[in-house]
Amino acid sequence: MYLYSNILGTFVFNQNFQIREKILFSDAETIKYFVLLADDKGLPSEEKFLKKFKSITNLREKCDEKQLENVDSAMKGFRKEFYEKNILLTKHQIKDSVADDLLIIQCSDCINEIEKSINILAKRLREWYLSVLPELENKIEDHKHLAELALKERSSLVKEFKIKNSMGKELGKEDTKAIESLASAVLDLFKQKEQKQKYLEAIMKKTCPNLTAVAGYSIGAELLSHAGSLKNMVMMPASTIQLLGAEKALFRHMINKNARPPKHGLIFQHELLQKAKKDMRGKVARTMADKIGLAVKVDYFKGDFIGDKLRKELEEKFR
Amino acid sequence: MYLYSNILGTFVFNQNFQIREKILFSDAETIKYFVLLADDKGLPSEEKFLKKFKSITNLREKCDEKQLENVDSAMKGFRKEFYEKNILLTKHQIKDSVADDLLIIQCSDCINEIEKSINILAKRLREWYLSVLPELENKIEDHKHLAELALKERSSLVKEFKIKNSMGKELGKEDTKAIESLASAVLDLFKQKEQKQKYLEAIMKKTCPNLTAVAGYSIGAELLSHAGSLKNMVMMPASTIQLLGAEKALFRHMINKNARPPKHGLIFQHELLQKAKKDMRGKVARTMADKIGLAVKVDYFKGDFIGDKLRKELEEKFR
Repeated sequence: MYLYSNILGTFVFNQNFQIREKILFSDAETIKYFVLLADDKGLPSEEKFLKKFKSITNLREKCDEKQLENVDSAMKGFRKEFYEKNILLTKHQIKDSVADDLLIIQCSDCINEIEKSINILAKRLREWYLSVLPELENKIEDHKHLAELALKERSSLVKEFKIKNSMGKELGKEDTKAIESLASAVLDLFKQKEQKQKYLEAIMKKTCPNLTAVAGYSIGAELLSHAGSLKNMVMMPASTIQLLGAEKALFRHMINKNARPPKHGLIFQHELLQKAKKDMRGKVARTMADKIGLAVKVDYFKGDFIGDKLRKELEEKFR
Repeated sequence: MYLYSNILGTFVFNQNFQIREKILFSDAETIKYFVLLADDKGLPSEEKFLKKFKSITNLREKCDEKQLENVDSAMKGFRKEFYEKNILLTKHQIKDSVADDLLIIQCSDCINEIEKSINILAKRLREWYLSVLPELENKIEDHKHLAELALKERSSLVKEFKIKNSMGKELGKEDTKAIESLASAVLDLFKQKEQKQKYLEAIMKKTCPNLTAVAGYSIGAELLSHAGSLKNMVMMPASTIQLLGAEKALFRHMINKNARPPKHGLIFQHELLQKAKKDMRGKVARTMADKIGLAVKVDYFKGDFIGDKLRKELEEKFR
């Protein structure tokens, strides 16, 4: 008598490898349980059979090639069920792959793309608004501020900025409305960006508290996005994390040895690196990448919160 | 006694070219009037002097070099006023240059840029939404439709599209909110685009009724944007209008004679050209560019509305 479990369920064969009894898994959860646990603990359905039949051999523990061939031929009738159960399992694995790090990456990329859209539309607003009050164009460099002003009445702006003999023209009602609605669209996108930043900060603090403490939520998320996933990033050496985002410069250096090797990639935006003196930046970047690598590992394996400690060490070292 | 007018005003000189009397222009409107009208009609201030002084020579009509030199030296004291008046005049000319065709070009370019932004953000939404209901991704190809669906509850969509064992995940409240707000941002941009299209149509019908009737408001505006202004477009031969927007293909042909010359540029989007058979397209494009050239000229010189007639001629020729 032999006992054997696979993705379909648990089977009992007689000496001639004909199926005597079976318990089929009914839902995806049990299948997942099989995939995860069968190797070390055994399945509950197996225990039932072990109690019922004496002198039974569990083939999962030791099994030669000939026995496996016999199992295979006994299973031939189950081809359709195999197919279905495998698809079900795959679907569930895809479902489970939607982890928080994936959402972080989506959100971080989204923020970059909202910024791109804001730039496209804000530049158009700037050019269009030139026909109304060209005098403001040089005075107001901030896109958001200009969009806010474009919503105000022209006459009140003329007073506010003390503009004499403006080169701009008082446009008709419909023309003004068109510009104003573009301005509010730009402002809406700014709001959208802020919302996404808040959400990103929250989810980063929840999922990667240590990474957030060391690198900040924005740089941390961009690093994750470059690495592709939290798991990928955990497996990276600190030197790779140091250069994430500086791939172009790195390859330039690898092809042409005269080109200097990059000292930092995305982490360059970090305030500690920004504050550091130029000749110290390589050193700071190396240490920072090291701490980020540690933080990510702790986050992935759900360790205790040590972000504050790491950050303090970093700050103290380069004060 | 001599009479002379310039940007400052009207001056009366004695035989030695000393200023005896003058009337200075006080505002930009009169200066503009001087620039526009002095040549053919004479200024009102000149008439006053002509009545007052007998035997006065108007230098504007006939004036030799020596007399002009004398006028110049008499004017030396007015350098500052010259400077100021010229700036005032320039400012007013800039102001007047904001004509409707400039607004049309801004709006047409703006619509293109809104489309670009929509594409960037809608693609992101699509990718992000994959984690919620990946089954919809292939079914719904329209960006706007997907954004609308993303705002609905996941469970009701599962019912509506009869999805079994979805690979998507029911996300948390905050995660769902982030996706939904992106979806509504995309929808807002779609609304913004529609508004701008309506405005463009209205302003095109007002400013270029003939061009709109022949080419449609959208293609007409893009042609204007490529030409730079209505005036530029009026001065273009029909063959240039035919190829507006196909510059790349044209230059490719000019450099490499093996490359075929382009038959049409922006006007390719016109429905008549879309309907035409492939071997007729060159002919249709040529005639269409011809009619568009006519229409634009009528629009610029504020002629009667002949757009309907032109359009009918075009349609009848290629039925």
